[in-house]
Amino acid sequence: MEKKVFHELLPFDSALKLLLENFKEKVFYPLSSETISVKDALNRVTAEPVFARISSPYFHSSAMDGYAVRAKSTFSATEKDPVKLEIGKEAIWIETGDPLPEDFDAVIPVEEVNVYENYIEIYKAYPPYHDVRPVGEDIVATELIIPENHFVRPVDIGAMLASGILKIKVRKKPLAGIIPTGSELIEPERIEEGALKPPALIEYNSSVLANLIKEDGGEAKVYPIAKDEEKDIEESILKACEECDLILLNAGSGYGKEDFTYKVLSKLGEIIINGVAIKPGKPFIAGFVENKPVLGIPGYPVSAFFCYHLFVKPLIEMYLGAKLRREEKIQATLSRGISSGIGVDEFVRVKVGKVGDKYIVSPVGRGAGLLMSVVRADGYIVIPSGSEGYSQEQTVDVYLWKSKEEIDNTIVCIGSHDNTLDILYNYLRKKYPHISLSSAHVGSMGGLIAVKKGEAHIAGTHLLDETTGEYNIPFIKRLLLEKKVVLINLVYRTQGLIVRKGNPKNIKGFEDLKREDVVFINRQAGSGTRLLLDKHLREIGINPSQIRGYENEEYTHMGVAQAVASGRADVGLGILAAAKALDLDFIPVAEERYDILIAKEFLELEIIQALLDVIKNDEEFKKAVLSLGGYDIRDMGKIVYES
Amino acid sequence: MEKKVFHELLPFDSALKLLLENFKEKVFYPLSSETISVKDALNRVTAEPVFARISSPYFHSSAMDGYAVRAKSTFSATEKDPVKLEIGKEAIWIETGDPLPEDFDAVIPVEEVNVYENYIEIYKAYPPYHDVRPVGEDIVATELIIPENHFVRPVDIGAMLASGILKIKVRKKPLAGIIPTGSELIEPERIEEGALKPPALIEYNSSVLANLIKEDGGEAKVYPIAKDEEKDIEESILKACEECDLILLNAGSGYGKEDFTYKVLSKLGEIIINGVAIKPGKPFIAGFVENKPVLGIPGYPVSAFFCYHLFVKPLIEMYLGAKLRREEKIQATLSRGISSGIGVDEFVRVKVGKVGDKYIVSPVGRGAGLLMSVVRADGYIVIPSGSEGYSQEQTVDVYLWKSKEEIDNTIVCIGSHDNTLDILYNYLRKKYPHISLSSAHVGSMGGLIAVKKGEAHIAGTHLLDETTGEYNIPFIKRLLLEKKVVLINLVYRTQGLIVRKGNPKNIKGFEDLKREDVVFINRQAGSGTRLLLDKHLREIGINPSQIRGYENEEYTHMGVAQAVASGRADVGLGILAAAKALDLDFIPVAEERYDILIAKEFLELEIIQALLDVIKNDEEFKKAVLSLGGYDIRDMGKIVYES
Repeated sequence: MEKKVFHELLPFDSALKLLLENFKEKVFYPLSSETISVKDALNRVTAEPVFARISSPYFHSSAMDGYAVRAKSTFSATEKDPVKLEIGKEAIWIETGDPLPEDFDAVIPVEEVNVYENYIEIYKAYPPYHDVRPVGEDIVATELIIPENHFVRPVDIGAMLASGILKIKVRKKPLAGIIPTGSELIEPERIEEGALKPPALIEYNSSVLANLIKEDGGEAKVYPIAKDEEKDIEESILKACEECDLILLNAGSGYGKEDFTYKVLSKLGEIIINGVAIKPGKPFIAGFVENKPVLGIPGYPVSAFFCYHLFVKPLIEMYLGAKLRREEKIQATLSRGISSGIGVDEFVRVKVGKVGDKYIVSPVGRGAGLLMSVVRADGYIVIPSGSEGYSQEQTVDVYLWKSKEEIDNTIVCIGSHDNTLDILYNYLRKKYPHISLSSAHVGSMGGLIAVKKGEAHIAGTHLLDETTGEYNIPFIKRLLLEKKVVLINLVYRTQGLIVRKGNPKNIKGFEDLKREDVVFINRQAGSGTRLLLDKHLREIGINPSQIRGYENEEYTHMGVAQAVASGRADVGLGILAAAKALDLDFIPVAEERYDILIAKEFLELEIIQALLDVIKNDEEFKKAVLSLGGYDIRDMGKIVYES
Repeated sequence: MEKKVFHELLPFDSALKLLLENFKEKVFYPLSSETISVKDALNRVTAEPVFARISSPYFHSSAMDGYAVRAKSTFSATEKDPVKLEIGKEAIWIETGDPLPEDFDAVIPVEEVNVYENYIEIYKAYPPYHDVRPVGEDIVATELIIPENHFVRPVDIGAMLASGILKIKVRKKPLAGIIPTGSELIEPERIEEGALKPPALIEYNSSVLANLIKEDGGEAKVYPIAKDEEKDIEESILKACEECDLILLNAGSGYGKEDFTYKVLSKLGEIIINGVAIKPGKPFIAGFVENKPVLGIPGYPVSAFFCYHLFVKPLIEMYLGAKLRREEKIQATLSRGISSGIGVDEFVRVKVGKVGDKYIVSPVGRGAGLLMSVVRADGYIVIPSGSEGYSQEQTVDVYLWKSKEEIDNTIVCIGSHDNTLDILYNYLRKKYPHISLSSAHVGSMGGLIAVKKGEAHIAGTHLLDETTGEYNIPFIKRLLLEKKVVLINLVYRTQGLIVRKGNPKNIKGFEDLKREDVVFINRQAGSGTRLLLDKHLREIGINPSQIRGYENEEYTHMGVAQAVASGRADVGLGILAAAKALDLDFIPVAEERYDILIAKEFLELEIIQALLDVIKNDEEFKKAVLSLGGYDIRDMGKIVYES
């Protein structure tokens, strides 16, 4: 096996600089432009300054409905000694926007005069040009309307048309050719024909990249999937270089046997970047073929996403000659510490919530393969290459993928996970489109602590007190001594052992967890489910060390169900809804109470009241919860404790 | 003449509430939806929650390039006593994303092993599922991908495709029918055929409204211009009601003879709003015809623009079932006081700049006819109906039409106006697309004071000291005692008397300003041009009271030129470039020095350095300045004073 020599990775800043400098040298300047109708110019970038052709208004016009007069004829008018002007001769009816009649120089609004059969009476003097919009009041012919390198907005279109500009020169939209590579890839449409069997993988990165480009004002052409063969990739690149302005190759930029980007680019052109000290996105490659930039975008979806933002977006800006809008930046407090390796700039997806008057930020999954971590994140933070990470409660810059307003209208829910929370989120948003629910799953105990520390508005919790048999309240009394809270019930739910369809290992109860041939999947310490398990184990005298897999932890019920479904484990403890979702079998063990803890200081917030409204009054929501199975809603919305 | 009874205007909040409540009752619910391909779903709004059909990955796959092994077989491996595994049997080559072979449960990255002819050597134990992406690691089948009422982003498209979703239900785009009304209106295209003669007006509001709707995710259909005739307007409304979801009538909502909206709407349907206590936008009308909202949008472009934001946008949100992104809000300090009438919510366009660490906000032109005031503004402030206005230095909320980043990268230039500033702005933006120049014209003296107070980075100034004959420096020494500044020259320019083409009044010099038949147009007090005028008048012994029009002030050279061009005045003092721009005649009076004053504390800012770079080094900029005429650039960029 041929092993590639690992070279020094370029720091991000140097890599971007190198790419843009090469671009300027090889592609720039002048940028391509085209002449289009002003009416079609929305969001296009001007390729030259636009100057007014005609003034607006282009004649002296009336600013009001009223009478055109000669100002001079009004000079002697007073309240006591009004001036009479003959209608049609000295005073001519005029509507807003009408041209001032020749030799007239002022307008008197109709409200300020008294109208008689053939004359009007006026009661004060009016200066010349009173209520007249003089020529050029809005736009003076020859003046600059909008500069070059400007994104055209609706009002700009209005101003250009008003000043007689019908066509303008705008930058051509850069056309990006996207070449998906990988012998195992299939177009998503082919799922329908049954083509999705291992090792086939759904090719979706090209759609993400194409839509990112579209959003940023470029155009994208997706080429057929190229096989992992030098010849196929080479041909695709040459074709795309003929037809497009820049080329994205996805993937094949790594160091595997079937990664041909480096080899093919070296042959066809010149490589300027091979690997960048960023995470995710390290195997990024950039080169030029026939003076067109060809970028090797890594295959993992999150790597591809960040490489787009870090390298492709700045190139689009070069083609457009204008800066695209970037993420809004806010400062937020880290809810927990986060470490990162020295030597790479790491881009960490985060959830952000506003609790009280501070913004709280929490990292989410960091794997480059976790596209859902981007979907669910609110933005990202950067841990620069010189830093080993950030400590808890440190203030960091957060780049938002949502508007601050949206963050401000988000309920932060930290604690135990239950499938009804997803349903609740959906019905909340249906009734209150401007409100979101962000839930982080750290277990019931973690939720109580988050509420205590003011890092969450609410927490989902189902903590069973072994001595009293009571749910949640003993823990709240112990942990949240000085915090005013309200505890309301959401559901009762059935916990049980989740096993594969047909129960092939014939598991009947906790006793079976001791068996040599049974692998268990656990929940994390501090979760209510873990407490429930440990209680049952103690009751029947099983020691955790007797259970294979006790140390393997998942953070959600679905995680447990998934581990069972995929064969990683034979059994786990979880809720019926999770078993049903993945068509697994379920052995009921206990009914437990799942409550929502609310910090009282936030109870009157609109977002919390909206949540309570849905919980208490939304019949559709209730129906949806019941349809999940394993839930009882007899006390839904009822206050079970208040401090 | 029939006079309409003036009724009570509705407060804005009540009007919006009334409109939305009527909408809910008459149009809502359910909203129309359509099923489209996920690949085409960018920026569409989901009409139902989207759940994963298949997991991603849907088989256990390798997370690395390396060897698939059975974890058990590695348990005894140590650095000293490595385990040998036979290639092809106990260790199988695997690439990232490949399915784990049946019966294998871990992957060892290629970098961590030594490869020999037919076996590999490993040096530590690997747990099960090491470097394996288990089924559902990213997406678990059945889980919620995105909720209802969600704007689809590129990553959402990726996640949906990855989970086997090819089509989704989205909200139909609401179709707005726009009916321009007004007998005097012409389509902009008709300018080309010479149709633009008074009283003809260019109809451009429909393009602004259509593009605003497009930007917000709706669709627009512009109907032919309807005449100011009841029948024509009635027919247009009925046709649009058949074809569209909502109808915008522009204009005709006022109280003039030719304003038919009220009358026609009363006849065809029901009017729910007739006039709102807002400025601009007061004559807004809303009604329903055949359960479709019909909105009467006032004709002045700024009124139409605000009525869109205040009433049409919320309706679009109702159709989409989702909140559109609103302007970012920042807090800024008012550079001068602003008054407003009690009883109306006034929306005032403003310029915003960041000078030092504070945001400075200044109101711009308030006329409803000034579309350029919207084009040039950075955002707006609201003066609520209960307030008489704000005082200087008060902190107010500003709603930004630009990103904060763009504001942060804007040079604030307050002071004297010169046409070269527009040119400078254009070349600055050409070379540095992320930097803007915002210039407010308050005269030279106002500029010096703005720099002194820290409200501007730079100021344009041409103040002639009568006693020494020196420009600017004596004033700076007197006014900016404790401020460190740098003064650089921009241009020398020729000031002179601007008169109509052919000089019909035969004006030869300042002496002629005394003549009975000559009307003068002046510049505002504090401007350098005014000082120049007053100096010349004193020298030849003319008293200002002898000059007709001395009290009429304009704020820019172009304003003066425009007043002469349109016949409002016969002569004004200004620069050659302004006369040339409007094809006027020019009698040179003096050459003066026009300098740029820079607060030293800002000198090293990137934005100021960029400006200096263009002034000093951009040959294209210099050429463009010379082509204006009347300028000398012999000292351009030279430091003339430093404190």
